[in-house]
Amino acid sequence: MSVDKVLEWVEAHDKESLDNLIEWLKIPSIGTDPAYDAETRRAAEWCRDHLRGSGFEVDLVETAPPGGRGQPMVFGRSEAAPDYKGPRVLFYGHYDVQPPDPLELWDNPPFEPVIRPAEDGMGERIVARGAEDDKGQVAMFLAAMRGWKEVSGLAAGGVPITVMIEGEEESGSVNLERFVQSHKDELGKCDFVLISDTTMLGRGRPAITYGVRGLVYTEITLHGPDHDLHSGLWGGKCPNPLNELSKTLAKLWDDDYRVTIPGFYDDVRPLSDEERTLWKKLGIDEKAALESVGLGPDGDVGEAGYSMTEREWARPTCDINGMWGGYTGEGAKTVIPSYAKAKVSFRLVADQEPRKIFDAFKAWLEANTPKGCRWGEVIDHGLGLGVTLPVESRELRAAARAINRASGAEAALIKSGGSIPVAGLLKQDLGLDTIFMGFGLEDDRIHSPNEKFEVECFRLGTRSHAVFIDEMWKLGE
Amino acid sequence: MSVDKVLEWVEAHDKESLDNLIEWLKIPSIGTDPAYDAETRRAAEWCRDHLRGSGFEVDLVETAPPGGRGQPMVFGRSEAAPDYKGPRVLFYGHYDVQPPDPLELWDNPPFEPVIRPAEDGMGERIVARGAEDDKGQVAMFLAAMRGWKEVSGLAAGGVPITVMIEGEEESGSVNLERFVQSHKDELGKCDFVLISDTTMLGRGRPAITYGVRGLVYTEITLHGPDHDLHSGLWGGKCPNPLNELSKTLAKLWDDDYRVTIPGFYDDVRPLSDEERTLWKKLGIDEKAALESVGLGPDGDVGEAGYSMTEREWARPTCDINGMWGGYTGEGAKTVIPSYAKAKVSFRLVADQEPRKIFDAFKAWLEANTPKGCRWGEVIDHGLGLGVTLPVESRELRAAARAINRASGAEAALIKSGGSIPVAGLLKQDLGLDTIFMGFGLEDDRIHSPNEKFEVECFRLGTRSHAVFIDEMWKLGE
Repeated sequence: MSVDKVLEWVEAHDKESLDNLIEWLKIPSIGTDPAYDAETRRAAEWCRDHLRGSGFEVDLVETAPPGGRGQPMVFGRSEAAPDYKGPRVLFYGHYDVQPPDPLELWDNPPFEPVIRPAEDGMGERIVARGAEDDKGQVAMFLAAMRGWKEVSGLAAGGVPITVMIEGEEESGSVNLERFVQSHKDELGKCDFVLISDTTMLGRGRPAITYGVRGLVYTEITLHGPDHDLHSGLWGGKCPNPLNELSKTLAKLWDDDYRVTIPGFYDDVRPLSDEERTLWKKLGIDEKAALESVGLGPDGDVGEAGYSMTEREWARPTCDINGMWGGYTGEGAKTVIPSYAKAKVSFRLVADQEPRKIFDAFKAWLEANTPKGCRWGEVIDHGLGLGVTLPVESRELRAAARAINRASGAEAALIKSGGSIPVAGLLKQDLGLDTIFMGFGLEDDRIHSPNEKFEVECFRLGTRSHAVFIDEMWKLGE
Repeated sequence: MSVDKVLEWVEAHDKESLDNLIEWLKIPSIGTDPAYDAETRRAAEWCRDHLRGSGFEVDLVETAPPGGRGQPMVFGRSEAAPDYKGPRVLFYGHYDVQPPDPLELWDNPPFEPVIRPAEDGMGERIVARGAEDDKGQVAMFLAAMRGWKEVSGLAAGGVPITVMIEGEEESGSVNLERFVQSHKDELGKCDFVLISDTTMLGRGRPAITYGVRGLVYTEITLHGPDHDLHSGLWGGKCPNPLNELSKTLAKLWDDDYRVTIPGFYDDVRPLSDEERTLWKKLGIDEKAALESVGLGPDGDVGEAGYSMTEREWARPTCDINGMWGGYTGEGAKTVIPSYAKAKVSFRLVADQEPRKIFDAFKAWLEANTPKGCRWGEVIDHGLGLGVTLPVESRELRAAARAINRASGAEAALIKSGGSIPVAGLLKQDLGLDTIFMGFGLEDDRIHSPNEKFEVECFRLGTRSHAVFIDEMWKLGE
């Protein structure tokens, strides 16, 4: 197999690959909105047909539960060449996109992709909803697969890949776990997961993300009196749920911004000196990051003893994401509310278990019930396992070599404070580790108006995926 | 002057007095709503004409600022008889009413008054918006005045009364202070204020309210980053305004539920042993009160060392009346909000000054600014002075005697945790004390659908106001 010929092919067919992406981007696959169900399905069909064109066996598999809604899964596979001895790869991506609102903030209609000069004169970019997240990143894989098929005649150049491209990522992947459970036979044959849905460290600084945080997202209600009361006639006489909720939530952190829930840190994998040193060398400008969100150096606030990057990548958190109660309109209303509510979430790191943290939080709430009040149901709005891949894993090193060969640059090893629940799900259910080989930039405005993807990034990602196939072969040698 | 004849007259003309009230209640004087401006004025005219019919000199005085809106003040006076030596009374009331929404919860249209049997078989009640608050209570005064005029031929039986019945009470009395300032000559001649806008201790338990609490109502904003952030990428890295606002507000109270703002209690008039003993004798059922709002005995929560009634009547409070920030919709949104807001109010007791407390709170916020955050403007949504009248004052004793003579029952001396800003205003600007001689019941549903006023209460109030005139004469003897 000649990877060089594949790289030549993808370079020569650069425009064709971009045109393919543009064709895909024109299909408004807003998976969350039933009004777009037909379009979303069309985007899945487009992807199926394209993969078939590259020699994969592909079907659309329905994911809807009985009587429910679901977007079809693009589920495909390529066969191993007879002499292939490397691993089987599970490629995961998604073809659904975020709703494009607010429309008036787009410079061009979100589903009429345009290619524009990059603002800083560094090449060009594709502007459209989904340009990066995740059609653009999946399209890099598709272009590389097309190249291997054209050059070698084999799907994926003979590397066995199972492909799972879903249409529900932006609406919570509600049917994914059931899908995984019912396709364990095929998925269980895979050795690890490859996902392109993350960013680089910056322009010209490719990276592999070897860890993402987990998530526990809850909604809590503190009940006091059974109806709203006049604060003149009742103020000082009975518990005020807003006063008490503030007092209770305030106890979630100590003076060092450490979470006070008993056992919260028990399973936290400590940050190693090696990682600390490595991350320092990445030269991340924390001051500039604070400035970009309107904060000065005194905005460097968080768990004592760790830098901002260390806190994002290696430490768990607790945040109030929403809180409400009482009168929130104009002017004055002297009310003691009957209840107060908050959305409280935790970002978890390896090896914290979401269910264990959820239960610990519930127990903590019970133990801290304000006098005269009671808690309503603690709602679970989603749990996700955090994952961290050993940086010395052979697949990760293969991916790093692929990027290095494709770009000439060393792939930085980074983590992300965000959560990619599918990775936790595949780890938990199938024991699969995930390698995040992503080529987005932080300013790609995913989920926002004028989402874009740099053509340079697209090209680098395509080349990297092409070389990655070669690295898979080498793992078997 | 023969008060007995007046009492006979009012008894004989009971139906006429009720019919007058019903006529007044039919006018939808929703002062806050410009759509009802003409009706609101009509209610003022009705009141003016009625008072004129009782011998008062009365005018409607415009209160609107240049270019602004305002409801006319019913401003009247009666002359002292040549041999009168008692005080001049300032009678205050309001003819505007709360909007009647939600209309569908009314058993009869809110401006089509009906007389219904009381639920417990104890007489009858008038049901309509304004039936108690405050047309019904003002109508008791009007009926008593009519009686005196008919019997003695003199307005108010020769007692000098200045009458100020406004149309903006339910919309914050925005023009009242300016009115008071520009009518200081007339108002300054008065010796004290009489207001019927409070309740009795219960059915058959008439009361004089000798103190109401003051109010400081604020709205605060805590700013963090200049836009909402992704809680995965930023959680743990920078201040979260919701976390920090909860932590800050939690510091407003100590473990004994005492407000921690320095100087907060400096000017609080201590509760006397005498008041304590007196209030205990009132036999207020605090357990039943808690039950009525769905709380058990453990709902008896508040400042240590005081009973529920003592906390409402004699102690200041701090309450969060509203709080909001971040995502408050359905499901999960992993956001670190740019800001968080709260409405925080204080109920004050004599002799706390609202402005001083407002400033102390502002200074406290500054001193407790969370690291990396900043406070927005502290909005003042209304300040009101609390007032407490010495229970031994001769006017208060006169009012108590009037009630006693009219009802055969002792007037309980009670306070209220609510605020009646006009009383504070008249104390502050003119040095006038207020006597609250009110005949409402706690279940009169003022501001709610099916507002009602017991006919028994209306009669008792009318008789009490009639005797009150006699008591004024006696004060001069």
